[in-house]
Amino acid sequence: MTEDKDNIQFELTDELIEQVKLLIEEQKDRELRKLLNEFHYADIAEILDELDLEEAIYIIKLLDSETTSDVLMELDEDIREKVLRNLSAKEIAEEIEELDTDDAADIIAELPEDRQQEVISNIEDQEHKAEITELLAYDEDSAGGLMAKELVKVYETWTVAGCMRRIRGQAKDVTRVHSIYVVNRQNKLIGRLSLKDLIVAKSDNKIADIYISNVDYVNVHDDVEDVAKVMQKYDLEAIPVVDDNQTLLGRITIDDIVDVIKEEADKDYQLAAGITQDVEADDSIFDLTKARLPWLFLGLIGGVGAFLIMEGFQDSFQKYAVLFFFTPLIAAMAGNVGVQSSAIIVQGLANDDLKGSINNRLIKEMLLAALNGTILAIFLFLFVWVVDGNMNTALAVSSSLVAVIIVAGLIGTFVPLFLDKRGIDPAIATGPFITTSNDIFGILIYFWIAKLILGI
Amino acid sequence: MTEDKDNIQFELTDELIEQVKLLIEEQKDRELRKLLNEFHYADIAEILDELDLEEAIYIIKLLDSETTSDVLMELDEDIREKVLRNLSAKEIAEEIEELDTDDAADIIAELPEDRQQEVISNIEDQEHKAEITELLAYDEDSAGGLMAKELVKVYETWTVAGCMRRIRGQAKDVTRVHSIYVVNRQNKLIGRLSLKDLIVAKSDNKIADIYISNVDYVNVHDDVEDVAKVMQKYDLEAIPVVDDNQTLLGRITIDDIVDVIKEEADKDYQLAAGITQDVEADDSIFDLTKARLPWLFLGLIGGVGAFLIMEGFQDSFQKYAVLFFFTPLIAAMAGNVGVQSSAIIVQGLANDDLKGSINNRLIKEMLLAALNGTILAIFLFLFVWVVDGNMNTALAVSSSLVAVIIVAGLIGTFVPLFLDKRGIDPAIATGPFITTSNDIFGILIYFWIAKLILGI
Repeated sequence: MTEDKDNIQFELTDELIEQVKLLIEEQKDRELRKLLNEFHYADIAEILDELDLEEAIYIIKLLDSETTSDVLMELDEDIREKVLRNLSAKEIAEEIEELDTDDAADIIAELPEDRQQEVISNIEDQEHKAEITELLAYDEDSAGGLMAKELVKVYETWTVAGCMRRIRGQAKDVTRVHSIYVVNRQNKLIGRLSLKDLIVAKSDNKIADIYISNVDYVNVHDDVEDVAKVMQKYDLEAIPVVDDNQTLLGRITIDDIVDVIKEEADKDYQLAAGITQDVEADDSIFDLTKARLPWLFLGLIGGVGAFLIMEGFQDSFQKYAVLFFFTPLIAAMAGNVGVQSSAIIVQGLANDDLKGSINNRLIKEMLLAALNGTILAIFLFLFVWVVDGNMNTALAVSSSLVAVIIVAGLIGTFVPLFLDKRGIDPAIATGPFITTSNDIFGILIYFWIAKLILGI
Repeated sequence: MTEDKDNIQFELTDELIEQVKLLIEEQKDRELRKLLNEFHYADIAEILDELDLEEAIYIIKLLDSETTSDVLMELDEDIREKVLRNLSAKEIAEEIEELDTDDAADIIAELPEDRQQEVISNIEDQEHKAEITELLAYDEDSAGGLMAKELVKVYETWTVAGCMRRIRGQAKDVTRVHSIYVVNRQNKLIGRLSLKDLIVAKSDNKIADIYISNVDYVNVHDDVEDVAKVMQKYDLEAIPVVDDNQTLLGRITIDDIVDVIKEEADKDYQLAAGITQDVEADDSIFDLTKARLPWLFLGLIGGVGAFLIMEGFQDSFQKYAVLFFFTPLIAAMAGNVGVQSSAIIVQGLANDDLKGSINNRLIKEMLLAALNGTILAIFLFLFVWVVDGNMNTALAVSSSLVAVIIVAGLIGTFVPLFLDKRGIDPAIATGPFITTSNDIFGILIYFWIAKLILGI
């Protein structure tokens, strides 16, 4: 491979960080500028993430805002917050001027409310200012909150030649031209064109004659997750956003959707692992505790519940102390089965590929759990029989295992489906939530059935 | 919103399915064709996923291969397999002719080996055939396995005007023109151009004068996950693929990368939930059992281990039977903490944002676990003291909880880091694996410490 500058092979080495730190210390601005301009802004952001705050701010102030605005966007959110706190409203406004409207609005939305107004009033480009203000009004989880105002738009009455002329003007503001959107006199979206179509068309053609009326779009109030699903399903790289009157308002590009998909997946993963907030390994111990402790408390309460159940059965089982030694096994199996079945449902719901009624799902899960449970119970039966020598105990433990697994599977299937019907994110039903409730139910069922079989 | 045909609002209703089924039964081909041509191919695929195999095949044979080839790509993998089994090699080859090379290669790779050759030999377009054969030779997890041969390529010696003429030809085969790649006489990638740049340039300019030499690319042997990271980091919509000599071989587009990211996230989620294979809720009970049973067995073995430990401590704790009632609590907490810490590490590794040494990570996790553990232990201490009335027991249970949580946190942190160093996917370290090992370690540590404190 070559030494191309923003290649796959950029590697953040300790040497590079040291070099940058030294250049800052010695205030060798020219060399520093020369060194950093070699890198892609996403790489510069990675370097800044490793520096002290003063050093990062030094670089932000050193480089021109065309670069630093993009660098800011790529910084870790908490580092960006600190950097912005050290810039004046005017300096932030200068960065904002260089950003696309969607990124600009995102940065401003992160600022404390009182600074937001101050920064906005410092934006010189009036159109940019108005567009950013418009975007700030939308819910951040809606299409409006994700879209950019930058797009290439043509009227159906234009000719191809006139179009090309005007596109040369519009396209300057648009980093990448995905589609050209065709609107009527009322600015309503009526179709699309690709640059390719324009190039191939005769120059005196009217747009009205060549545009493709079959255009995907989303409403400005649609949920971003739905937008992500549409763009994924139809393999779109950009999608126009319209209001309720079909007026063209903006467009959403696939790179923002990739971020949405990634964030959503990370969030579900963390929920399944019992972490409540969006944390990273490098966050502070305090932030990590805030994210982890609530679910651990839930586990503690579940454990206390299990304790109380076992204490309640204490007298019945004077003769069968050995039964108590299987409670961790029962709890673990109940938890594992519950997590498995809920994870499959949560994923099916997320990917929109669950078909059929809740009842059918439950019946299927029951059969599945009965099958898995029976196979596992046979092994457990043999083990207990051999070790304990008592066939009744073996029968009690293994048959209740089957029952526990079936109930755990049903709970794991039902809870996310139920939450989803109620409009609650089913992903919270995975992980510690299911594990804890299944622990308690599992142990309770276990002792009930054991009591029944042993006839105590 | 309007009744635009491939709008966000396509909904797969039972009525629609019934209507399609009826039209097939009555062999109303014309109406059927008219109805289905209203829909986007991804929507037709959703309809087909709901039909019986014979009905699906009927529709595939009814519609023209320009549509059905795209529909085939969107079908559920197992349904596609069944449909393809019912098409002749010649019929499959006709579908293949309509597909881009990357999709064509994917479909062929899914066929049994003996049919692959038969289908390939039926492809009439010799260039298409050669390109597909080339793609089939690459590892499916490499950039080569994901790339398409379709791209727009210009030589640096061409003029803008000549370029536009030739692009009109090349672009017909390329669904979406992302970038135009600039090569030298030896076909080595030296830069890129956007259509926008071409449109804005003067027509007698040489490409050599206007191209952008700063082009991202990947090597044909790079891992697809690395390609995904690069495209995400640099917000790319397409990336050219080169061989070791920098010769331009193909390009990868973001829609394929979105699928990679989604699959990767789904896989990690399933691993964390204790599901070994890529299954969906609608798979057969047999497939689901195959995916779920192995981890449940692991849980069973863990439970048996816990049983043996408890049995071993039976005699020591004659006086303190109550201690046995806390084993589900201890096991649950050990499991939860282990999953939390391993999930954060796995995610940090996946997102490349773990910095610093393993030792520092372990020290941080130890502090974090000690903090969480102490808070939880205080509550547990009070509970046991109140319920059991014995301060010694309360002290034994709660102090061992702290120790168990610390050890669980360390195991959860260490194992994925260790696996990653060894080149093994750290995601397997989450879920049942960590839960089970922590259950056993947790209970063992619990009884040891309790024994120590109670002085037995």
